[in-house]
Amino acid sequence: GKWKVWTEKDVKQTWPNHPSFSHKGTFGTGYLIAGSDEMPGSVLLAAKGAMRAGIGKLVIGTTPFVAGAIAGQIPEATYFFEGLIKAGDGEFPEKLSVCAIGPGIVPGEETEKAIQSILQNDWPVVLDAGALHKRTYPKNRQHPIVLTPHPGEFSRLIDQPISYIQKNRIEAASKFAVEENVIVVLKGQYTVIAFPDGTGMINPTGNIALGKGGSGDALTGIIAAFLSYYENKKAAVANAVYLHGLCADLFVKTKGVRSMLAGDIPDILPEVMKRFE
Amino acid sequence: GKWKVWTEKDVKQTWPNHPSFSHKGTFGTGYLIAGSDEMPGSVLLAAKGAMRAGIGKLVIGTTPFVAGAIAGQIPEATYFFEGLIKAGDGEFPEKLSVCAIGPGIVPGEETEKAIQSILQNDWPVVLDAGALHKRTYPKNRQHPIVLTPHPGEFSRLIDQPISYIQKNRIEAASKFAVEENVIVVLKGQYTVIAFPDGTGMINPTGNIALGKGGSGDALTGIIAAFLSYYENKKAAVANAVYLHGLCADLFVKTKGVRSMLAGDIPDILPEVMKRFE
Amino acid sequence: GKWKVWTEKDVKQTWPNHPSFSHKGTFGTGYLIAGSDEMPGSVLLAAKGAMRAGIGKLVIGTTPFVAGAIAGQIPEATYFFEGLIKAGDGEFPEKLSVCAIGPGIVPGEETEKAIQSILQNDWPVVLDAGALHKRTYPKNRQHPIVLTPHPGEFSRLIDQPISYIQKNRIEAASKFAVEENVIVVLKGQYTVIAFPDGTGMINPTGNIALGKGGSGDALTGIIAAFLSYYENKKAAVANAVYLHGLCADLFVKTKGVRSMLAGDIPDILPEVMKRFE
Amino acid sequence: GKWKVWTEKDVKQTWPNHPSFSHKGTFGTGYLIAGSDEMPGSVLLAAKGAMRAGIGKLVIGTTPFVAGAIAGQIPEATYFFEGLIKAGDGEFPEKLSVCAIGPGIVPGEETEKAIQSILQNDWPVVLDAGALHKRTYPKNRQHPIVLTPHPGEFSRLIDQPISYIQKNRIEAASKFAVEENVIVVLKGQYTVIAFPDGTGMINPTGNIALGKGGSGDALTGIIAAFLSYYENKKAAVANAVYLHGLCADLFVKTKGVRSMLAGDIPDILPEVMKRFE
Ligand SMILES: Nc1ncnc2c1ncn2[C@@H]1O[C@H](COP(=O)(O)O)[C@@H](O)[C@H]1O
Ligand SMILES: Nc1ncnc2c1ncn2[C@@H]1O[C@H](COP(=O)(O)O)[C@@H](O)[C@H]1O
Ligand SMILES: Nc1ncnc2c1ncn2[C@@H]1O[C@H](COP(=O)(O)O)[C@@H](O)[C@H]1O
Ligand SMILES: Nc1ncnc2c1ncn2[C@@H]1O[C@H](COP(=O)(O)O)[C@@H](O)[C@H]1O
Ligand SMILES: [Mg+2]
Ligand SMILES: [Mg+2]
Ligand SMILES: [Mg+2]
Ligand SMILES: [Mg+2]
Repeated sequence: GKWKVWTEKDVKQTWPNHPSFSHKGTFGTGYLIAGSDEMPGSVLLAAKGAMRAGIGKLVIGTTPFVAGAIAGQIPEATYFFEGLIKAGDGEFPEKLSVCAIGPGIVPGEETEKAIQSILQNDWPVVLDAGALHKRTYPKNRQHPIVLTPHPGEFSRLIDQPISYIQKNRIEAASKFAVEENVIVVLKGQYTVIAFPDGTGMINPTGNIALGKGGSGDALTGIIAAFLSYYENKKAAVANAVYLHGLCADLFVKTKGVRSMLAGDIPDILPEVMKRFE
Repeated sequence: GKWKVWTEKDVKQTWPNHPSFSHKGTFGTGYLIAGSDEMPGSVLLAAKGAMRAGIGKLVIGTTPFVAGAIAGQIPEATYFFEGLIKAGDGEFPEKLSVCAIGPGIVPGEETEKAIQSILQNDWPVVLDAGALHKRTYPKNRQHPIVLTPHPGEFSRLIDQPISYIQKNRIEAASKFAVEENVIVVLKGQYTVIAFPDGTGMINPTGNIALGKGGSGDALTGIIAAFLSYYENKKAAVANAVYLHGLCADLFVKTKGVRSMLAGDIPDILPEVMKRFE
Repeated sequence: GKWKVWTEKDVKQTWPNHPSFSHKGTFGTGYLIAGSDEMPGSVLLAAKGAMRAGIGKLVIGTTPFVAGAIAGQIPEATYFFEGLIKAGDGEFPEKLSVCAIGPGIVPGEETEKAIQSILQNDWPVVLDAGALHKRTYPKNRQHPIVLTPHPGEFSRLIDQPISYIQKNRIEAASKFAVEENVIVVLKGQYTVIAFPDGTGMINPTGNIALGKGGSGDALTGIIAAFLSYYENKKAAVANAVYLHGLCADLFVKTKGVRSMLAGDIPDILPEVMKRFE
Repeated sequence: GKWKVWTEKDVKQTWPNHPSFSHKGTFGTGYLIAGSDEMPGSVLLAAKGAMRAGIGKLVIGTTPFVAGAIAGQIPEATYFFEGLIKAGDGEFPEKLSVCAIGPGIVPGEETEKAIQSILQNDWPVVLDAGALHKRTYPKNRQHPIVLTPHPGEFSRLIDQPISYIQKNRIEAASKFAVEENVIVVLKGQYTVIAFPDGTGMINPTGNIALGKGGSGDALTGIIAAFLSYYENKKAAVANAVYLHGLCADLFVKTKGVRSMLAGDIPDILPEVMKRFE
């Protein structure tokens, strides 16, 4: 059928292989535009998610204040100061293979200008949090645009109450995906992943341990990483969602379900990734 | 009776359940006004306590200096710069379910103005450390006000010497709780929890490993988290105190009793929380 | 005899006990004047050493730059900005039970002024690194002054070449201790601890894993903590040195001897402390 | 023969011994000129690599911004602010036993001036990343100059396409090493180590887990450390490369191959070092 529950078997079958001579260039360079002075942590969560998920290099577009606060925790990344403003002016780091924007930034003119500029480039794009605002999307892109709203954010995108969305998760996500030519990741229990061609997946992993500020930011990073080096972009998104949830399922085996922090996701990810090799 | 020793069985019986579709909104948003440039760490301890204890989202009202120093250690939180001053002007983050104030700030006009403003809002409130000063409390609130003095702080609140307090822990705490319509957590070995209705509990957990700067800050965060998502507010406070002590009891099984740091409490908490699920 | 090799049995026999109602006040408040903008880490190592060794509270006198760089790593401590300069003006935090000065600061007028001011107060004092300079010491103090030179530093204190010192470790240290009325901890393999009364100890623990920048800073913190809450001040110093070395002996059981960092010492200390309870 | 595959046995045979009275002076002082405001993490990775590999002391020449961002993560190091500019003026920390330059800095006039100044001093030198630029090297030095290009960087050094280099790794590296009188570490799968005398080694360890931003920075630190305290400078370089790869080989035994971060290398190194003692 056009819709299916995504299972461990699906993840295994779509897991990419890389020859032993691969190097960081093979896995691509991600660009993460995120974080602002009063929301500095989101970018760290997304960055760790992306790097633990296997991106080759990561450039973070954020403020110097945020960079100073987080650099010691993710020394593998580099920075492009004031990346949001620079994006608005069409200024980007070189040779990108994916761009994610949204965690820790607020919607507004500056953000919108940056997004419009990003959409003119043909990288895979992930739009989350502050980047989730109503707009039209280009129809003729080669690379996917992924939106990752939770029900509250999706409610604002489609002008429907949350209760409507939760009763019609698949239909609502799929309609938007087809009409707007984007991939919709409608988050929450049984995350729905809807593609522009009308197909989609339902994710069975995850639990209420993910009900914590920042969980979505880590997911944004993982999706970006998989989009960077997967050929199969549908599987990239679905596997990212699947593994993100699996981290939480592993956590609650030994720790209290309410005790998980979003920062535990990238810490657990290496063990979860190992299961599929 | 009106007073009882709080036991493992009590914690188990009052442990809340959450349906599998719960999300961060279910667990509420806490606001922590704490930390100043020369006391930056307290807020991190309280924040970690709150998040490991299961609050959905956490906003920290502190100075930019403090935020820059700690953000890399608690990336799941966001900030409301100069929250103490803003609170005095009635400015707060949106949709709060609990507010805690005190760790790492000094008593004074600014602090008092902030507290008066907080008390006009009907959230559960935790007052600790620098927020523990003599004042009168509103009588017609729906949500509890929790004060968490150690004997030295309580001595200043009730104008009695520490020796008097230590000889009359239950009586002194209960009298204050009833008269002032607040919940008193009188800390130290066998922490006393006194409610405005004259009832109360004595906590059997904890040990001298908690005799370290910052232990109380972690407790403040845990109490705030439990108040945020517990229906039963008495149990929220008692369970917070119980689990805080249990972290120390677990620590000393393998580590030197004098070696515990307050920062170990939130690190151990996930394992302790698991015991009650 | 007047001199002895300090053994595990000695540590056990002099290990202090604390009643179950002890609190942070019982373990005292340490003041650590250390760190400068280009040497910010030393103070973190000493602070972690002190807190893992059981001090009740720790105040760090350092620059705002250093505080901002380390506060996230030792949230249990508070700060007294520009403590070195303030010490020179006789300004100190309240109710101290021990003061350590030296790691990460340079000798000079400012440092000397601070030390002279410290010596006028009757706390136990630890002088290390940048605080090790020739001067005369007060003879009528109740509380000990502990100097912790390595052979190079001791060479400058007594105007003798390192080779002379290494051939006459006990004699040289003891002579200085007796003449200057201070406790000398002459560091290096078989650290010599010489007391003003002519007695002393030789420490058998430790190994070349300690041959790393910062090892001595951690020791300074541990000595300060033990001086803060030990009645027996001789045992305080000897046990600190013994345990510091034991951390290294434990490390090399599973890790490469050259791989140890000074920061591993406070991390291992809780396990080492447990052995003596 | 002149070229050989470097094996575990070779590492064991060339592993240095140090007497039990060794101290930090024995292992030398390294100077690492690295890091800039938008590339702050590289220097932390190199610094941790160097210190976990056993250097006695480490001074980091970087900007105050970078120092503030990383100091809490490597408290054992000290700083020489604006080391790049100061190096250009011939200003260096005292008593160095090795100097590494390049991670996190950009090529340009300032960098070149610093390198020329470094090359006039007779320490072992490691040139990586931003320090890899075409220039001539002194022929009459006692201590080695080590260049650590990946194929892309080597392509710019010898004006040949990457494809040419990858087909002629040994020949190309050896030619350059002999002609320029430097040690060339041509990185990538089967890293080639070419010496000025025409001999060389091929490294069998490592895997695609190293295909991540920052892996090379950690290697730079490890090489610098080994050069600092090895008599046998050829073995120093070869063993550094061998152990760096072995960290990755150990990682993938339990964690996903794409999940490794460069920062895991220094964390794993102590266990890897232990194998050779
Ligand atoms: N009850 C739940 N069960 C499964 N996944 C959840 C649950 N609550 C939240 N999540 C996931 O946690 C993340 C929250 O994203 P955000 O709200 O942006 O932080 C999403 O990936 C959600 O799918
Ligand atoms: N000897 C002790 N036994 C049990 N709990 C203690 C003991 N000493 C301190 N505590 C707890 O540690 C915390 C200290 O709070 P504070 O003084 O604000 O840092 C409180 O929760 C005390 O109840
Ligand atoms: N070879 C060694 N054996 C035992 N202890 C050592 C050795 N080398 C250094 N140490 C200890 O490491 C610390 C070094 O202090 P510092 O030189 O001030 O960093 C002192 O406590 C020394 O006693
Ligand atoms: N596929 C691979 N197999 C073995 N080592 C690798 C591989 N890819 C990268 N490396 C190593 O990882 C490091 C990358 O350096 P750099 O490109 O400067 O970050 C070098 O030490 C390479 O030899
Ligand atoms: Mg989100
Ligand atoms: Mg307190
Ligand atoms: Mg020293
Ligand atoms: Mg490199």
